[in-house]
Amino acid sequence: MRFHTRKWVKPEDLNANNTLFGGKLLAWIDEECALYSIIQLENKKVVTKYMSEINFMSTAEKGDIIEIGIEVVKFGKSSLTLNCEVRNKMTHETIVTVDNIIMVNLGEDGKSLSHNKTKIEYVKDRLAAQE
Amino acid sequence: MRFHTRKWVKPEDLNANNTLFGGKLLAWIDEECALYSIIQLENKKVVTKYMSEINFMSTAEKGDIIEIGIEVVKFGKSSLTLNCEVRNKMTHETIVTVDNIIMVNLGEDGKSLSHNKTKIEYVKDRLAAQE
Amino acid sequence: MRFHTRKWVKPEDLNANNTLFGGKLLAWIDEECALYSIIQLENKKVVTKYMSEINFMSTAEKGDIIEIGIEVVKFGKSSLTLNCEVRNKMTHETIVTVDNIIMVNLGEDGKSLSHNKTKIEYVKDRLAAQE
Amino acid sequence: MRFHTRKWVKPEDLNANNTLFGGKLLAWIDEECALYSIIQLENKKVVTKYMSEINFMSTAEKGDIIEIGIEVVKFGKSSLTLNCEVRNKMTHETIVTVDNIIMVNLGEDGKSLSHNKTKIEYVKDRLAAQE
Amino acid sequence: MRFHTRKWVKPEDLNANNTLFGGKLLAWIDEECALYSIIQLENKKVVTKYMSEINFMSTAEKGDIIEIGIEVVKFGKSSLTLNCEVRNKMTHETIVTVDNIIMVNLGEDGKSLSHNKTKIEYVKDRLAAQE
Amino acid sequence: MRFHTRKWVKPEDLNANNTLFGGKLLAWIDEECALYSIIQLENKKVVTKYMSEINFMSTAEKGDIIEIGIEVVKFGKSSLTLNCEVRNKMTHETIVTVDNIIMVNLGEDGKSLSHNKTKIEYVKDRLAAQE
Repeated sequence: MRFHTRKWVKPEDLNANNTLFGGKLLAWIDEECALYSIIQLENKKVVTKYMSEINFMSTAEKGDIIEIGIEVVKFGKSSLTLNCEVRNKMTHETIVTVDNIIMVNLGEDGKSLSHNKTKIEYVKDRLAAQE
Repeated sequence: MRFHTRKWVKPEDLNANNTLFGGKLLAWIDEECALYSIIQLENKKVVTKYMSEINFMSTAEKGDIIEIGIEVVKFGKSSLTLNCEVRNKMTHETIVTVDNIIMVNLGEDGKSLSHNKTKIEYVKDRLAAQE
Repeated sequence: MRFHTRKWVKPEDLNANNTLFGGKLLAWIDEECALYSIIQLENKKVVTKYMSEINFMSTAEKGDIIEIGIEVVKFGKSSLTLNCEVRNKMTHETIVTVDNIIMVNLGEDGKSLSHNKTKIEYVKDRLAAQE
Repeated sequence: MRFHTRKWVKPEDLNANNTLFGGKLLAWIDEECALYSIIQLENKKVVTKYMSEINFMSTAEKGDIIEIGIEVVKFGKSSLTLNCEVRNKMTHETIVTVDNIIMVNLGEDGKSLSHNKTKIEYVKDRLAAQE
Repeated sequence: MRFHTRKWVKPEDLNANNTLFGGKLLAWIDEECALYSIIQLENKKVVTKYMSEINFMSTAEKGDIIEIGIEVVKFGKSSLTLNCEVRNKMTHETIVTVDNIIMVNLGEDGKSLSHNKTKIEYVKDRLAAQE
Repeated sequence: MRFHTRKWVKPEDLNANNTLFGGKLLAWIDEECALYSIIQLENKKVVTKYMSEINFMSTAEKGDIIEIGIEVVKFGKSSLTLNCEVRNKMTHETIVTVDNIIMVNLGEDGKSLSHNKTKIEYVKDRLAAQE
């Protein structure tokens, strides 16, 4: 799994108990899945359709750095299933995992649309191929 | 199910496709579950431990009003299991449901603690009982 | 008075003295009045025109849960006058009251428009009537 | 009246009708009154106690610049009464006025405390006097 | 230099070390430069093109009040160069200075456009001239 | 240069012209530099001291994905100098570059402190070494 986006836990990210607000963490996960899918499917209209169960295994405190990892589980016809892990950057301790997050590729009309992708592509390869 | 908190979908709540950002919705759900549990367990130290699968059945747009409903599934020894539904206030159309959200009651030391609650209580009854 | 929306006072809601920032509270009241009016008037274009004097009677701290109650004072021709109370959910102590908040119903052109409503309606009754 | 703080109306400040969200405006006013009082009373523990009626006379749109003006109405024993006007910077059209906003000076114990101030002071004069 | 906009450092503005988050400060400076330019150039389409080196000379803490000052360095053909200082309102201690911030005037097509301004104008003089 | 953190440009990140607000971008850069330094210096008390000139070369729009890259320029005694580039994830077009960002390592007393680091370390190597 490749861990890209990192977040610095700031006061605005805390719940009233001074630990990382779970809702904020879920929002970060959802954003990371959205942008991962947009890059892979080369389509800006991608929405979250489903998340499998979410286990909060540990938390984070103010000043901690966390990183969010995404892996592809499956390329569907008009969907992309992702697996997500969030961990503490310094200790590599897992904070939360979500096994299956289904993102759906939409057309201009807002309905699901085949994306014709079957494997992970790297943007730099796409850019090279265009030249 | 009783629907309490209502939200007005404003520009800051949208994703880049101009529909309600799923991450924001999850943050709202998490906050509602936290405050529901704090009220029931009469303890401010309550954390989200687990969410069962999440189905995004419809979305909302700028200017829509949504409401969040919570129901108790089970009182555990040191936990409280909730069921949550978010729906569009005007049409009663369901936006998302989460069957089981487990909240854990913590002691001062941050460890799980028995809460000695077995059924829903209303604050007004508590206040009446105190007099 | 019916109390719907609840808020959990988080670090981002505090002023520099670590009590609930009054401006945040006013923003929450304004949002609640807007969505209450949108539901009653069945029109998304509703704006706040006037608020009567505001008395801050007590405050709230991080981790407190507050709830916002709204009551209709009067249905005008193109307006709706509301009465609002915010209280601490656990103690029922009043935080702030505003006796008259005038919301105005607007037409597509942004000018005030008759709304033809004279009494409170519940959405479930409307939905039942449609069937 | 001297107009200090200016705000640029950005997408995050809009309500669902794409005009300036009234609640945001009230939050800006409250912040401006707080900081004005802190400067005059030379005390960081100052809270908003009361606002007289608020008239929303016009609104603002995305990209507009507004400015907030404050004037002292009265120095009380432990309070400071302010008068506030918000206007559009380009046209000088008034957006909202609040005639009396009472700010209270608090001591370390959170109770009201005499401030011994009777007139407006400028920080530069204070700094000069210290030398 | 005239100092207009003031900010009250609140919990949401802090970094994880409880001092003012530098990124927030930069965002405030950028906003102040944008609105200053919009007023001077009488054009809402103005963008930041360049900032010269930024020296963080001191910081601020929760509850501090800071003020942002702007001065014109030069009127270019389609640009405006500004000089910015942020200081602590109470002590007049400098927090950060930026010698040159170049703002560019854009046309409807998003390209740079001559603004035909050569000196600072005050809005009240413009309004007087219109009468 | 390694590009880690990615951001999805959402409505709340836009200026009034509907392009990415420069101030938001600067806040993202500052956060990325802070967390990069915290990881390298293994110290949570790290502050931004200086940024060299900033060139805004292109912008981004709602729905774009940007990524932020960091490279070490120099390990000082109590400082770390970084080089930062922000680019559009899909086209690899550069949005902004900052050649030198000086981060300072602080001790418990808030004063600069030697960090005894001379080269980049990867957290996984540190974790392996501990076993």
